[in-house]
Amino acid sequence: MHIDILTLFPEMFHGVLQSSILKKAYENDRFSYNLVNFRDYTENKHYKVDDYPYGGGAGMVLTPQPIFDTVEAVKKQRKSDNSRIILMCPQGETYNQKKAEELSQEDHLIFICGHYEGYDERIREHLVTDEISIGDFVLTGGEIGSMVVMDSVVRLLPEVLGNKDSAPQDSFSTGLLEHPHYTRPADFRGLKVPEVLLSGDHGKINAWRERQSLLRTYQRRRDLLEHKNIPEEWKRWIEEWDDK
Amino acid sequence: MHIDILTLFPEMFHGVLQSSILKKAYENDRFSYNLVNFRDYTENKHYKVDDYPYGGGAGMVLTPQPIFDTVEAVKKQRKSDNSRIILMCPQGETYNQKKAEELSQEDHLIFICGHYEGYDERIREHLVTDEISIGDFVLTGGEIGSMVVMDSVVRLLPEVLGNKDSAPQDSFSTGLLEHPHYTRPADFRGLKVPEVLLSGDHGKINAWRERQSLLRTYQRRRDLLEHKNIPEEWKRWIEEWDDK
Repeated sequence: MHIDILTLFPEMFHGVLQSSILKKAYENDRFSYNLVNFRDYTENKHYKVDDYPYGGGAGMVLTPQPIFDTVEAVKKQRKSDNSRIILMCPQGETYNQKKAEELSQEDHLIFICGHYEGYDERIREHLVTDEISIGDFVLTGGEIGSMVVMDSVVRLLPEVLGNKDSAPQDSFSTGLLEHPHYTRPADFRGLKVPEVLLSGDHGKINAWRERQSLLRTYQRRRDLLEHKNIPEEWKRWIEEWDDK
Repeated sequence: MHIDILTLFPEMFHGVLQSSILKKAYENDRFSYNLVNFRDYTENKHYKVDDYPYGGGAGMVLTPQPIFDTVEAVKKQRKSDNSRIILMCPQGETYNQKKAEELSQEDHLIFICGHYEGYDERIREHLVTDEISIGDFVLTGGEIGSMVVMDSVVRLLPEVLGNKDSAPQDSFSTGLLEHPHYTRPADFRGLKVPEVLLSGDHGKINAWRERQSLLRTYQRRRDLLEHKNIPEEWKRWIEEWDDK
């Protein structure tokens, strides 16, 4: 997979791209990336990338020319006809694990990160293939959002994760929140680990974890249970909790 | 506001903290921050911060001691009794703009960022005040999520944003998605700006924008309309669209 990131703030990415999983995946040739400042593609002599909105109003709007031209240039470099061109924006579809899995199947991702400004609508309508929002909150630009998407996608690529943190057991892959974890010491300032986890009885331990995982989901994120095919035993547990 | 970030990967933050709004806000004394590697607070001579889970299973679990001690140390440094101690984790409440506004009222935020590992449950139960998830997707660690929260909170602090991008008009503050924006040229490769925006008639322009904003929300995020007090005129528009 190759990722092109179109941004006016390429230096924002260095810490994240040069640490942890993204660094390892890059060094092991699992993916490559290029930070592209689309200001370099402006056709006007002042390198202006934005202008006032037609119809008036506060704020500036990114003009179509530099972004269209940059996207076309990076597609040409990759000789790609089916790149995913992703606009990071609050109006986009809300990002989730299913989308991460979908994007992890692609060969070429292009992220367009606005900053402060809005996007000229023609970018949205005639250039991009996907619009993504990472959530219902306001960020200064698309950069941090694209880091979120990159981290979640790259860790799904083949041979990126070691055994110790294999993807399928994470929250949101199973559809339930994780059960509680405990490690040493068994007694920390008087706070003790549940007896069952020290019992060595793996049948009991698994049953406890399954129930805790469901309980946590029931208490915190009942919406995750709505469209799930729920085993009979879980239904009985949920009825118990409903009665309380 | 002061922010302490507890992480094993402090270098991940440099690009984001040293760019754009966070950089400006820091330089103008709107907030201060400290990156704290909680490995420095381990009491064991190998500087181990994690250990195997009780009850078996894959993955490692962050032990309570270094995190409890680091949080206590940074609270003491700030002489703070009411710090918000935020655990970044998939089991947390889903982050949104309301939470950003709430956190922006605080004097001291402490972010705890795990990486690969789970957290010992005693951290969750007996130390933290908030658990935050930025969305339903799996990330390698809490670092990028805490950057999301920091950016969205710091931009709400007094005098951080200039007039040109004042917070209240952003998406999610008004409750509707933004209307389309257009800027020059009026004709880009044959793609034209809507006539109304060139008309100079501000009554018409505002009406068009209001309707476009509602239409976009109706098409993409109907959930945002559910709990809203909707004017009569909007109801008529929505009925029109429903009929199509």
